[in-house]
Amino acid sequence: MAAAKDGLDAGADGLGALQTPCLLLDEAKLAANLSGMRAQVERHGVAFRPHLKTAKSIDVALMAMTGPGGPATVSTLKEAEYFAERGVRDLTYAVGIAPHKLDRVGTIRRRFGADLAVILDSLAQAEAVSEWSRRTGDRLPVFIEVDPDGHRSGVKPGDADLLRGIGQRVAAGAELRGVLLHAGESYGLSDPEALAEAAEGERAAALQAAETLMAAGLPCPVVSVGSTPTASHARHLDGITEVRAGVYMFGDLVQAGIGSCAVGDIAVSVLASVIGHRPDKGWIITDAGWMAMSRDRGTAAQAVDQGYGLVCDRAGKPYDDLIVAQANQEHGVLALRQGSGAQRPDLPVGTLVRILPNHACATAAQYHCYHVLDRDGRAAAVWPRINGW
Amino acid sequence: MAAAKDGLDAGADGLGALQTPCLLLDEAKLAANLSGMRAQVERHGVAFRPHLKTAKSIDVALMAMTGPGGPATVSTLKEAEYFAERGVRDLTYAVGIAPHKLDRVGTIRRRFGADLAVILDSLAQAEAVSEWSRRTGDRLPVFIEVDPDGHRSGVKPGDADLLRGIGQRVAAGAELRGVLLHAGESYGLSDPEALAEAAEGERAAALQAAETLMAAGLPCPVVSVGSTPTASHARHLDGITEVRAGVYMFGDLVQAGIGSCAVGDIAVSVLASVIGHRPDKGWIITDAGWMAMSRDRGTAAQAVDQGYGLVCDRAGKPYDDLIVAQANQEHGVLALRQGSGAQRPDLPVGTLVRILPNHACATAAQYHCYHVLDRDGRAAAVWPRINGW
Repeated sequence: MAAAKDGLDAGADGLGALQTPCLLLDEAKLAANLSGMRAQVERHGVAFRPHLKTAKSIDVALMAMTGPGGPATVSTLKEAEYFAERGVRDLTYAVGIAPHKLDRVGTIRRRFGADLAVILDSLAQAEAVSEWSRRTGDRLPVFIEVDPDGHRSGVKPGDADLLRGIGQRVAAGAELRGVLLHAGESYGLSDPEALAEAAEGERAAALQAAETLMAAGLPCPVVSVGSTPTASHARHLDGITEVRAGVYMFGDLVQAGIGSCAVGDIAVSVLASVIGHRPDKGWIITDAGWMAMSRDRGTAAQAVDQGYGLVCDRAGKPYDDLIVAQANQEHGVLALRQGSGAQRPDLPVGTLVRILPNHACATAAQYHCYHVLDRDGRAAAVWPRINGW
Repeated sequence: MAAAKDGLDAGADGLGALQTPCLLLDEAKLAANLSGMRAQVERHGVAFRPHLKTAKSIDVALMAMTGPGGPATVSTLKEAEYFAERGVRDLTYAVGIAPHKLDRVGTIRRRFGADLAVILDSLAQAEAVSEWSRRTGDRLPVFIEVDPDGHRSGVKPGDADLLRGIGQRVAAGAELRGVLLHAGESYGLSDPEALAEAAEGERAAALQAAETLMAAGLPCPVVSVGSTPTASHARHLDGITEVRAGVYMFGDLVQAGIGSCAVGDIAVSVLASVIGHRPDKGWIITDAGWMAMSRDRGTAAQAVDQGYGLVCDRAGKPYDDLIVAQANQEHGVLALRQGSGAQRPDLPVGTLVRILPNHACATAAQYHCYHVLDRDGRAAAVWPRINGW
């Protein structure tokens, strides 16, 4: 049993010794999520490049990657620095490069011997990258971002002129490594058939773009696709060389709403203390407000709106229909889902509860560390994580 | 001119040397917001206890407080520790106390000689606090939280039995310092008359509760009210002894929508780089997604929906109708407001823009420091801030 602290017994699970709110990570669920996705990607016979933007932790990364040096994907150059410094050398920075960030990219490559690649989708970026590579003598690896579904960035897969133009400009000074896609619209789906179609659309767009480049005599050794929903639902990945995914590691209520995981698979939760009650309104007040949960309301657009999170007991078992119905900065208001016939549990002041988040990436970013629960459900370790840029 | 960095000239404003996204703080606007609220509160002849939950920075606190030792309000015990360690000794922790946090409160009081007060609204908390005070010999100062408008926590001002019961239990071991209210429903208003009425309702509820305590022979030396909207709109504060407010320091688009500040008063903005374009969709893509802006969509419920933020040029001048229409983790999608007849500005890849946030508390919490713009608009200093619990 952990040592008593702050006047209360820590309990057999050690949770009573933690300051609330804090972030819990269930190591067994994490491990199961990791091996499930690894098996899924291996079944397709393609390489796996996990996205470290959700966890931002070397401890999680070492469990998730196929080797201690990568491959891995990052969403910020701060992540690239953090992971490269810790031995992860095969990295793709999967957000369109701004030219004034190239010197920082070069420093990470040089200082850590990292094979850090960038992505882009315009002639202007391609020219800037090529010019930078020629000037510095560092032949930067570059992916052309291709847009499979109109979600965000990327060249349309059928825009052969633009693909060739970018490819030629990149290859004139830098290293054209391939194409990279992210089927972000899949987050709006929940039907398995539609998700399989989204995965197929992502695959087909990738191949179309890759073939355009190769037909123009340009190299395209890597064809990279990925999102947690499409990686989970792809029927096959013929022609694809690597898959990326990130939020699958932890899972969350949005992914459960999509069907990429079950509620019981969610590996992160926020530990909170009950600090008050409003029986006249049916409210239980906790110290986990939106600062602790994030402002993410991703389930609001899904079939089941989970408010700011689904409330579980200290052992992680969900209460029937009890959600974080409202949130202020440091106050969470627990209430039964509208129309629920469930009984509101009796949770005296000081009771510890665990809250499953809508969006693991957003919630985890509110914390500097994970309190890791071992296979006996005991808070056994603290794993740091990074934030910022 | 700041030193060139990352291959680009920093520019006369020094902004080109900063990594994007980052958080800018306009010192002149901050100072004007601070003096405006100070004058408003002084006009009412009451003490001012600024809330440090928005800024979480000792540099900002020292400008905002009436003295270097406080008074001040905090929303977490981590803030209390941080500010007490830096000389702020008169502190109210304005979130209902969980009994297992009392030892941490006691450590802050003892270690820094801080007069750190707590708040509560139940018999169970009152008994726990009194018992703790008797056991430790530290007579903890306690406010009874009173609910003026059904927003969140607090005893109803007319519930005389509960007020007396809590007051008697507190006074049996700890120090009953008074009542504390927060008119949180005022955030949903925008009409100046309605805001003045909300301020009057907060005042009246405070006096009713204070009179109930005093009629029962209980002490109530401090009568504390506050929210940025009510503090800005109160007609008078007779009978009130102190006012609290926090977000007024920076202002934000939600406060501008309420009428507590003008858009031109907003002191914080996110510096972002343009990283791509989707002319077919009318989109400009930046590197400031929801991780940089927060997921707060507080203006969605107001007359003018600002998306994830209002876009300004590098000098801070808003573009006509250009907002962050969508956001992914590290991508912001700029687009004209729906139905706008404005011309989309030409912003090539690499252009720096500044984005005004919906909610300063949420956006600032995504950063570890402020890049402070001096009166010439130059990035002249870096002020650290804290996050977490």
